[in-house]
Amino acid sequence: MKVILKLIENNRYKEARSRLTQKNVVDVAYFLEEIPRKKSLVVFRILPKDFGAEVFSYMSREQQKYIAENITDKEIQLILNKLLIDDTVDFLEEMPANFVKKVLRNTDYNTRKLLNQFLSYPEYSSGSIMTIEYVDLKKEMNVEQALEHVKMTGIDKETIDTCYVIDNNRRLEGIVPLRRLVLSEHDALVEEIMDRNIIYTHTFEDQEDVATKFKKYDLISMPVVDRENRLVGIITIDDILDIIEEEATEDFQRMAGIEPTEEEYLKTSILTLSKHRVTWLLILMISATFTGNIIKQYEDVLQSAVLLAAFIPMLMDTGGNAGSQSSTLVIRGIALGEIDIKDTGKIIIKEFLVGIIVGAVLTLVNFLRLYFLEKVSFLISVAVCVSLFVTILLAKVVGGVLPIIAKRFEVDPAIMAGPLITTIVDAVALMVYFYIATTLLNL
Amino acid sequence: MKVILKLIENNRYKEARSRLTQKNVVDVAYFLEEIPRKKSLVVFRILPKDFGAEVFSYMSREQQKYIAENITDKEIQLILNKLLIDDTVDFLEEMPANFVKKVLRNTDYNTRKLLNQFLSYPEYSSGSIMTIEYVDLKKEMNVEQALEHVKMTGIDKETIDTCYVIDNNRRLEGIVPLRRLVLSEHDALVEEIMDRNIIYTHTFEDQEDVATKFKKYDLISMPVVDRENRLVGIITIDDILDIIEEEATEDFQRMAGIEPTEEEYLKTSILTLSKHRVTWLLILMISATFTGNIIKQYEDVLQSAVLLAAFIPMLMDTGGNAGSQSSTLVIRGIALGEIDIKDTGKIIIKEFLVGIIVGAVLTLVNFLRLYFLEKVSFLISVAVCVSLFVTILLAKVVGGVLPIIAKRFEVDPAIMAGPLITTIVDAVALMVYFYIATTLLNL
Repeated sequence: MKVILKLIENNRYKEARSRLTQKNVVDVAYFLEEIPRKKSLVVFRILPKDFGAEVFSYMSREQQKYIAENITDKEIQLILNKLLIDDTVDFLEEMPANFVKKVLRNTDYNTRKLLNQFLSYPEYSSGSIMTIEYVDLKKEMNVEQALEHVKMTGIDKETIDTCYVIDNNRRLEGIVPLRRLVLSEHDALVEEIMDRNIIYTHTFEDQEDVATKFKKYDLISMPVVDRENRLVGIITIDDILDIIEEEATEDFQRMAGIEPTEEEYLKTSILTLSKHRVTWLLILMISATFTGNIIKQYEDVLQSAVLLAAFIPMLMDTGGNAGSQSSTLVIRGIALGEIDIKDTGKIIIKEFLVGIIVGAVLTLVNFLRLYFLEKVSFLISVAVCVSLFVTILLAKVVGGVLPIIAKRFEVDPAIMAGPLITTIVDAVALMVYFYIATTLLNL
Repeated sequence: MKVILKLIENNRYKEARSRLTQKNVVDVAYFLEEIPRKKSLVVFRILPKDFGAEVFSYMSREQQKYIAENITDKEIQLILNKLLIDDTVDFLEEMPANFVKKVLRNTDYNTRKLLNQFLSYPEYSSGSIMTIEYVDLKKEMNVEQALEHVKMTGIDKETIDTCYVIDNNRRLEGIVPLRRLVLSEHDALVEEIMDRNIIYTHTFEDQEDVATKFKKYDLISMPVVDRENRLVGIITIDDILDIIEEEATEDFQRMAGIEPTEEEYLKTSILTLSKHRVTWLLILMISATFTGNIIKQYEDVLQSAVLLAAFIPMLMDTGGNAGSQSSTLVIRGIALGEIDIKDTGKIIIKEFLVGIIVGAVLTLVNFLRLYFLEKVSFLISVAVCVSLFVTILLAKVVGGVLPIIAKRFEVDPAIMAGPLITTIVDAVALMVYFYIATTLLNL
């Protein structure tokens, strides 16, 4: 790409174009992001229209916005006509309303109707991510007619690797992979070779559930039907891949107490980053104040045995870590569909037993260190160790159960259990600690 | 499925079989997991062989193991012959060595050679996840000959949706989607319609890098070549989907201080769960002791102003949360390939500025609460608030940079920055706090 950059710097655009068109469109899209904005506009405009439209679909939203704002309406129309409907929708969803209006005004009636339809599906639904570029067949066709029909449709995209068989009311009756058409005798009927056992989705189904079906059944594409079971579009695996990654990213963010966003970190402004983080930090800071109040209540105890304060970080941290381990495993298990509400009992038992084993090991190590190595008094050592054990046990069970409770109340487990678990466990740890210490030390 | 369960309970296997074979193989595999083990064996044996082999490939490892151990060698051979080579390899990799030997002894020479070859590719490499079921063409063929060749190969699998063009030394020259063969004129040469711009992988490449390429280029399959650039297999998207999910799961686990495992939570034994968690808990507990030692050093200070202890949880928690937010975003950014070592400078500036904004908001809220609401003395309020601000600022920068440092030293960012960040920030928070408090309060 360095050569091309040089050609562009020297304004040798024609040579640059002929080199660029030999590259993969994805690489060209990346390349345009890296060169100065103004140059990228010039380069984009010299690309052949078809090639340019494909490159456009792989650009970042900001780059698309910049290009769209700086080319003529006619050029936009040309690009949008070449784009797949679902790519156009993705793009329009992010653009300002008056820009969208302008685009819709300029497209022909049928495209406009389609775009409007797509834009009205709820975000994150099957309808919003489907494409309408697919091949439909009739079961009465024979293989030869079917192949002829495929050729007439003539889309050279992954979306025709599977063909969909519909009746006269467009109701879905079966699917036939294109390869099976190729492999079958010319006079066989589509009806004879189609699969009737179809995994499909409704337009309003949540995209996360669709992704789960793709994974479960190892699918490459899936038909989308409306409320009357009429075929309206298909969803392809490349979009599912993005959804799976987005969902994981959102969970990472929620578990760290960040409002989820699809924007890339480096492309997000300082203010947006701050806004997404400050809410949870405030909530957690104020909750932690209550934890502090527990200490305040035991001020007299601390006054007479200040050493007790030195073990607070260790107890709080270990409790928090023990709880996070459990909640993370359960949250992820729920996200992957491996754990369900009905498993609550199993989780409690598992975490309780793991808590006993892990707690015993940690407590033992801690006692040896405190009593023999650091020569802390026997009673204080015992108080710290018993608190540690109880804290770990409680942290494990609470950490395991909290995500399930969230799920039962239809709150996102990642939100409820991620950031909150440490705060809850901290409070528990301190209460246990001071209760045990005052009892054992007679304070 | 309830009807089938009833049929099986009443030993009406023949009817159960005819109903099962109408279901999707994935659903049948799930069904077998849910019924009692002994029943599942009986049901599996009555399934038609082809259907059974497909069901087998969707079973969990334990279920496969159970079935394999309880059927005859001949039955195993029948199943393994029907399985795709990569499914067989996946299965064999998890089986005990003597079982694998037995299987290898019984397969025919060519399969054995192939299996041996696959089994010797390093785990998590392209070689270990590829399949050899693909269609290869020659560029001198015309479309008609090519289609004839596809028919002769006759595999009805997604793996033939793309055909691979090789020269006489099996070196990869181009790719042609099957649909393009269907759409092209019969006398066109493969050479004329093939893509020469091929995204491929080497057998030894890490599967995570392969997954990244799939995402970047929206691929459905990818050719695998050996060191001499000869085509040896292809990788399909369904395996990539699993890899992407596994990698995300591993990162979740590492960030929570758990040794990563692919096993499902509910299927993992208590001992294994404990083993995977105890190491990091021990390391972090011992690190937290050093944090405690900071408090010990300031015992006199605490003695004369015990109230200071009450703000420790708030400072530690807020610092930890602020740091985790930053490290989570950067770790995820690295995993998705959006952030690289060269972005270190940008990250530091971003986190520093975010730290100032977020820190200012939190400090202000905290000061209002402490001084006006809780009537804490002015000096202590100031000491707590200044410490809070400095802690947040440091936590943000450290949290943002730590994953990048890990990456530079080729340690997994999720391991290094996930569990460690809280511990590091805690120590920093306490040092800052006591330093500022002693200075301001003249203690």
